[in-house]
Amino acid sequence: MDEHIVTSRLDTDFYKFTMDNVIVPYRQGVHVKYALKNRTTDVNLADHISESDLRRELDYARTLHLTKTELHYLRGTNEYQDRMFPESYLEFVAKNVLPDYKLKYSAGEPDQKELLLEFSGTWSPTTHWEIHALEVISELYYKSLMKDFSKFERDVVYARGKTRLWEKIKIFRQYPDILISDFGTRRRHSKLWHEYVVTTLAEELRRQFLGTSNVEFAMKHSLLPMGTAAHELDMVVAGMAKENEFEIRNAHRKVLGEWWDKYGYGLSIALPDTFGSDAGLVDMTAEQVRAWKGLRQDSGDPIEFGEKAIQFYTQYGVDPKDKVVVFSDGLTVEDIVKIYLHFKGRIRTTFGWGTNLTNDLGFKPLSLVIKVVEVNGRGAVKLSDNISKAIGKPEDIERYKKIFGYIATLNKPCVY
Amino acid sequence: MDEHIVTSRLDTDFYKFTMDNVIVPYRQGVHVKYALKNRTTDVNLADHISESDLRRELDYARTLHLTKTELHYLRGTNEYQDRMFPESYLEFVAKNVLPDYKLKYSAGEPDQKELLLEFSGTWSPTTHWEIHALEVISELYYKSLMKDFSKFERDVVYARGKTRLWEKIKIFRQYPDILISDFGTRRRHSKLWHEYVVTTLAEELRRQFLGTSNVEFAMKHSLLPMGTAAHELDMVVAGMAKENEFEIRNAHRKVLGEWWDKYGYGLSIALPDTFGSDAGLVDMTAEQVRAWKGLRQDSGDPIEFGEKAIQFYTQYGVDPKDKVVVFSDGLTVEDIVKIYLHFKGRIRTTFGWGTNLTNDLGFKPLSLVIKVVEVNGRGAVKLSDNISKAIGKPEDIERYKKIFGYIATLNKPCVY
Repeated sequence: MDEHIVTSRLDTDFYKFTMDNVIVPYRQGVHVKYALKNRTTDVNLADHISESDLRRELDYARTLHLTKTELHYLRGTNEYQDRMFPESYLEFVAKNVLPDYKLKYSAGEPDQKELLLEFSGTWSPTTHWEIHALEVISELYYKSLMKDFSKFERDVVYARGKTRLWEKIKIFRQYPDILISDFGTRRRHSKLWHEYVVTTLAEELRRQFLGTSNVEFAMKHSLLPMGTAAHELDMVVAGMAKENEFEIRNAHRKVLGEWWDKYGYGLSIALPDTFGSDAGLVDMTAEQVRAWKGLRQDSGDPIEFGEKAIQFYTQYGVDPKDKVVVFSDGLTVEDIVKIYLHFKGRIRTTFGWGTNLTNDLGFKPLSLVIKVVEVNGRGAVKLSDNISKAIGKPEDIERYKKIFGYIATLNKPCVY
Repeated sequence: MDEHIVTSRLDTDFYKFTMDNVIVPYRQGVHVKYALKNRTTDVNLADHISESDLRRELDYARTLHLTKTELHYLRGTNEYQDRMFPESYLEFVAKNVLPDYKLKYSAGEPDQKELLLEFSGTWSPTTHWEIHALEVISELYYKSLMKDFSKFERDVVYARGKTRLWEKIKIFRQYPDILISDFGTRRRHSKLWHEYVVTTLAEELRRQFLGTSNVEFAMKHSLLPMGTAAHELDMVVAGMAKENEFEIRNAHRKVLGEWWDKYGYGLSIALPDTFGSDAGLVDMTAEQVRAWKGLRQDSGDPIEFGEKAIQFYTQYGVDPKDKVVVFSDGLTVEDIVKIYLHFKGRIRTTFGWGTNLTNDLGFKPLSLVIKVVEVNGRGAVKLSDNISKAIGKPEDIERYKKIFGYIATLNKPCVY
């Protein structure tokens, strides 16, 4: 391998910086642990990725710093809020190095090895491992699938990717009001293919393509960097509450308040499903319901969620047509069209498109995540609207279900 | 030709933006005319550059806008002063398009054609033509000299450039306190060669290489963008004073005040020679002499200027060792070493290196400038410390000499 996989600290999702910028001033001291979880249970990563390849790539990522130009870029980001990254944060992140990782290939027969990967440390910089490690694992995995391919077979893989991309573009052109963004950094086939997809969509879909969550590509191609917040904010704030059930219940509400204080209208897309959307929506004050741009749907049934959102806004006397739902849960092009048509004229929709955009070359997609599993030594919890996406020890999940009055029953395997 | 010469509005000197940022709020309404002047009288540009090539490149430059990422970069520039480019300026410059140009190939025998090139309009955006047009002309000229070269002959040109560059680097390594910057955008052999030189110096000279005046390269290679102000600020402010001799005499003083108000200490390098350095130094108040970082020497004898600077600071009770002189007048490596050794331990020196850095491949250098020639319809004037560099109609030059008490007698042809 000539080139490393991660070569820039901006080759990550924009939301890592928008969250980090909230973490650093308020909760830098908290100790977190992130762990890799492979939700595609019939693929054993250790059979595909060698320990030495993985270590070399992870070690290389640890040598990277933000460059001066990358700092200029972040400092100059004003699309959502004027000067959203203050100098104090930029000074912090400029010195930031990815902390050490814990990697274990557990013993056993060669085809029964297991790969364990964990990242522990203060919340920032540890949080930045999420995307970089997923990039490394994903790219090494797909390389392994292609390692015995002839030159022509490789060619065919990309030819297939191109024809599929073209089919998608043709469909979107039939619906000029469908607006999509690239959210596919973490699950991409490779960096090169990801860049090809992003630049192609920008050229072919033009104003239908809103931007990319990948900051390096946003910078390189003058696209809009996109992203707001992830579940980890709620999870860590709840985790910090230790046993205090009131504080746990209040965690998402607290995050909503801090987020608005930091970014105002610009990044005001709420993510209600960390502990179930029912609880997450209740957490919003009437003022927040009116002020925020909208909601992100990241688990459960999208149509159901959208209908719930319409009811929710209506009940507060807000016209749903003034609000947006960002759908981002493992979408296919068919899902996008279906959701769009279903809600057309009733509530605004946009689509954060991941795996099926950046990794649709004929291989079976891999559903990998790196999630917070511990906060100050205690188990972290996420419920979501699909219990197969839940994170945490069974007893913690049960406890959180009670605290949040969680009654959803969906349990659908994650393909993407 | 496959690629255009100017492909980014940041492929220019940083000082164009630092000046423009002062021009836009205060003097946007003023009408200026810039003209090309070839000080290398034995080269007739029209014999080398075809009208169609020139028009195509100039026309292409007129299609360019700053990209979003380039605006991020400028917005994020804080090396000299926090948020030096305010949003109002960035909004202005984002919409900025290079105005039309006036190009005339005057009639005559083919080898007696003359090339006339002028740019007229409001000060900004017209000011931005200076560097872009010089880049185009310089690159087209050197291409024409190489057009019949074989592949091997071309190879030899760059091999010669590399060996010369290496000799320079070896000399600078002997004097680890010599600090240089690239000021060679306007006179470069080509963009590609310029980039090679800049990146090589950054790697080989490390902390001895302070940065580059070229904003695109500073951005692309995470180098420090360098530059302050040029004579045109003084010239236009004086030109706006019409017949009012007091105001003409006061122009440079006014610019000094405005510059400090805008940028403070960060960009406080005074350029005293627009109307002769004697007048320029007198213009500085005792407070300015103490507060500003130093002076730039751009005409006349550098040793004489440095000695004058030492006297000047001493006379104000300021230790010259706390001040810097930036030498930038057609330097060779020998000049740089000589000046450095002469002033070592007496006053700080740095070197803004142009033609001999970015265009030393064996061709005779060309001394081209694009200067302000008219302000609101009246002739603009520059005197400088070398009357061969003066700009203006003879009667205007005489008038300005009287106003500024100009008595210098140096008249040395410009090689670079």
